[in-house]
Amino acid sequence: MSDPKLPTRAEDFSEWYNQLVLRAELADYAPVRGCMIVRPYGWALWENITAALDQRFKATGHVNAAFPLLIPQSFIAKEQSHVAGFSPELAVVTHGGGEKLEEPLVIRPTSETIIGHSYAKWIQSYRDLPVLINQWNSVVRWELRTKLFLRTLEFYWQEGHTAHATAAEAQAETLQMLDVYTDFAVREAAIPVIPGRKSAAERFAGANETYSIEALMGDGKALQAGTSHNLGQNFAKAFEIRYLDQAGALQYCWTTSWGLSTRFIGAIIMVHGDDQGLILPPRLAPFQAVLVPIFKTDAERQQVTEAARRLRQELAAAGVRVKLDERDNASPGFKFNDWEMRGVPLRIELGPKDVAKNSVVLARRDRPGKEGKTAVVQAGLAAAVARTLDEIQQALFDRALAERRRKTFAVSAYGEFKSAVEQGLAYVFWCGNAACEEKIKAETKATLRCIPMEQEGGEGRCILCGGASRERAYFARAY
Amino acid sequence: MSDPKLPTRAEDFSEWYNQLVLRAELADYAPVRGCMIVRPYGWALWENITAALDQRFKATGHVNAAFPLLIPQSFIAKEQSHVAGFSPELAVVTHGGGEKLEEPLVIRPTSETIIGHSYAKWIQSYRDLPVLINQWNSVVRWELRTKLFLRTLEFYWQEGHTAHATAAEAQAETLQMLDVYTDFAVREAAIPVIPGRKSAAERFAGANETYSIEALMGDGKALQAGTSHNLGQNFAKAFEIRYLDQAGALQYCWTTSWGLSTRFIGAIIMVHGDDQGLILPPRLAPFQAVLVPIFKTDAERQQVTEAARRLRQELAAAGVRVKLDERDNASPGFKFNDWEMRGVPLRIELGPKDVAKNSVVLARRDRPGKEGKTAVVQAGLAAAVARTLDEIQQALFDRALAERRRKTFAVSAYGEFKSAVEQGLAYVFWCGNAACEEKIKAETKATLRCIPMEQEGGEGRCILCGGASRERAYFARAY
Repeated sequence: MSDPKLPTRAEDFSEWYNQLVLRAELADYAPVRGCMIVRPYGWALWENITAALDQRFKATGHVNAAFPLLIPQSFIAKEQSHVAGFSPELAVVTHGGGEKLEEPLVIRPTSETIIGHSYAKWIQSYRDLPVLINQWNSVVRWELRTKLFLRTLEFYWQEGHTAHATAAEAQAETLQMLDVYTDFAVREAAIPVIPGRKSAAERFAGANETYSIEALMGDGKALQAGTSHNLGQNFAKAFEIRYLDQAGALQYCWTTSWGLSTRFIGAIIMVHGDDQGLILPPRLAPFQAVLVPIFKTDAERQQVTEAARRLRQELAAAGVRVKLDERDNASPGFKFNDWEMRGVPLRIELGPKDVAKNSVVLARRDRPGKEGKTAVVQAGLAAAVARTLDEIQQALFDRALAERRRKTFAVSAYGEFKSAVEQGLAYVFWCGNAACEEKIKAETKATLRCIPMEQEGGEGRCILCGGASRERAYFARAY
Repeated sequence: MSDPKLPTRAEDFSEWYNQLVLRAELADYAPVRGCMIVRPYGWALWENITAALDQRFKATGHVNAAFPLLIPQSFIAKEQSHVAGFSPELAVVTHGGGEKLEEPLVIRPTSETIIGHSYAKWIQSYRDLPVLINQWNSVVRWELRTKLFLRTLEFYWQEGHTAHATAAEAQAETLQMLDVYTDFAVREAAIPVIPGRKSAAERFAGANETYSIEALMGDGKALQAGTSHNLGQNFAKAFEIRYLDQAGALQYCWTTSWGLSTRFIGAIIMVHGDDQGLILPPRLAPFQAVLVPIFKTDAERQQVTEAARRLRQELAAAGVRVKLDERDNASPGFKFNDWEMRGVPLRIELGPKDVAKNSVVLARRDRPGKEGKTAVVQAGLAAAVARTLDEIQQALFDRALAERRRKTFAVSAYGEFKSAVEQGLAYVFWCGNAACEEKIKAETKATLRCIPMEQEGGEGRCILCGGASRERAYFARAY
């Protein structure tokens, strides 16, 4: 209960992250290498993420279902790029019920294949289209270098899988879900993201186009926070997903898939966190406010506790997710530090003087020290808290956006590019040639994060080869 | 779209069930033997079940978390009864990332072991207790004879795992969760269940006591619909889950676990369904009401559609989960049959005459034909629908309870017992001797379902051996 402080982000960003995850009790290491236990506090955060996304999926006409976690190994091989991409990462079940299986099964690394198999069965006519299904589950990819939330053998996510009659509809769906992810990241997580198209080298194994939202972390590295794939007819052809069109002709469907995972929690930590620990955006925080009673004598204790319980009740009734910390073996100072580590956006302090004045002190997590403290009257506290939470939500977004702008470098010389990707995002013209992209990666460790949807227009010269270019792209070192 | 009718329950109950599951589009067979695809309609039902349970778990102080699906094989062996119970059913991962693993991993058949391992790490002092964690996930058990929802290799469930300082607290938790399941089954699913204690032979592998809720299906067989286990100190000792008590002495914890699975959907089908298909209890139904517009001419179509859309909007705004069936390639008669198959509790028919009279016809799914139809005015429709849904919910429960009473036989002669378990539940005195229980099973295929919590008192003679007995038990053939 009396851990030393975290390393600062400047000292050791990676170790700051690792210790924060453990000490905020978001997650823990599992007995199987590379696997993760998501602890109740981390899972409550994930539940809020899932609720915010699920509501958006349903509002855009999607329904949830559940496909099995075991897939015949032969399924993975049916789509050529897919097998090349996923084979090295598979967990293979060879025995079941005490016997060796005739055909090995794999634990799903993603579900395009098994869902493709089902869609082939379910879809007969154009009247059955579109099929718009999502599922919430976990998948397993045998990663070698793992880090809690960012890259684990098993991770939690949603995977949407849709089938359409036309290429245009599939493309519209792909972009719609990219927009849904962008809206979620911005409005719920207060993370400014760049929606864009991936280069061919960075595409999902089996996709014609992959789109992603990219975010900048506190150490200047980028993180892909959600992806949306236009799969063309690749899986439709591999799994015979066909429909009779209105003229009675048999056609292949056009499919998409899109996913966002527990990796997003890593983004929240690395975008908003500070040297005291986690800072959660109010709209996703398991506890939006924590009430800490302060007292010395028994008489004070009774008085303060009574008022604190009443205020907790009022706030909860008004829909604020509030925690009253009544631990009797921890000092107020310890509690302050503890809830700062856990990133609760707003602390409400209540001592004998506050009780006497019918007031409380609000302390904002995003503004440490006196600057973030305000005394407010108890009457109408719920409204004041709601307003402050909105302000914090906006302030977190504004700060993250300012930080990203500060670390985004529109450069045109390769020397400047090299120093840009040591600090953040390089925003440059690129000729579209994979060879340039590969050479940049080899020389600078920076990858092409995305070709942003919003293009300023104009022409320029490729940052590496100087060839003519009409599109700008973001490059960065990435998680 | 023009399937023949289901077989009747009297003709072939098993085939009635199998076809109903497929044709109501609740679930489908997966490419891996014994696995199940839960289709969107079935998953929406499961989502309503999870919401109703999750709200009860949280109200009783539990939080959710997520533990990995991969468990070192050696973990399973740490608790002696557990390994004996689960070893034959394991799915084993021997290869990962293209290499043979040093130690094989199993896909969780249940999570006592991996959670025990974590609790040992997390729990230090009496102040850390109780730990009250639940998780929603899927588990894999290598079953040989499978049936959709009732017994599948992979199934979905929740598993609660708690740790306590004293035996009394663990027992109170075990019984509290049995009560939660009973309350859920009765109030949400309209299924009268019998909460009771299992005999030693029927206990969970590793439990000191297992409790269950038992329900009677439409074919007179029983189904265990949820279980709650008092694990004593068995897992605490196997995994060293210990705490320092207030006196500073190291003590083993007392643990419990409890679960309810997608099997419960099987119970809903087999308790409420009729020869026309599924009947869903309104509180859990994905769609509580379906609006079917009826028209012949284009003019009628416009008039009726307009009114139907307005009513749909009003009902949705009032919180009714309502579906407007605007399919233009299906007749009203087809739609009636289709939604009857899918068990929507209430049909709202709207034709030109209804529009003219500002009325609609409500048709109750639980009362086929004219008897279940009422014309009601459109003004205040939402209130009339809500009231009717409440009535249906209650009527389903009443009918199921009457059916169970009709098929429950309090008998005292073994000859009567044999005929009782061919029709339903035998309610008899049992001496408590495992040998009697085993002989009964061998001779009649009936198992001891539970020793009900509510005992009438008094003494009697064991149904088999005639030995003195103070407790009554339910015996039945079971799923």
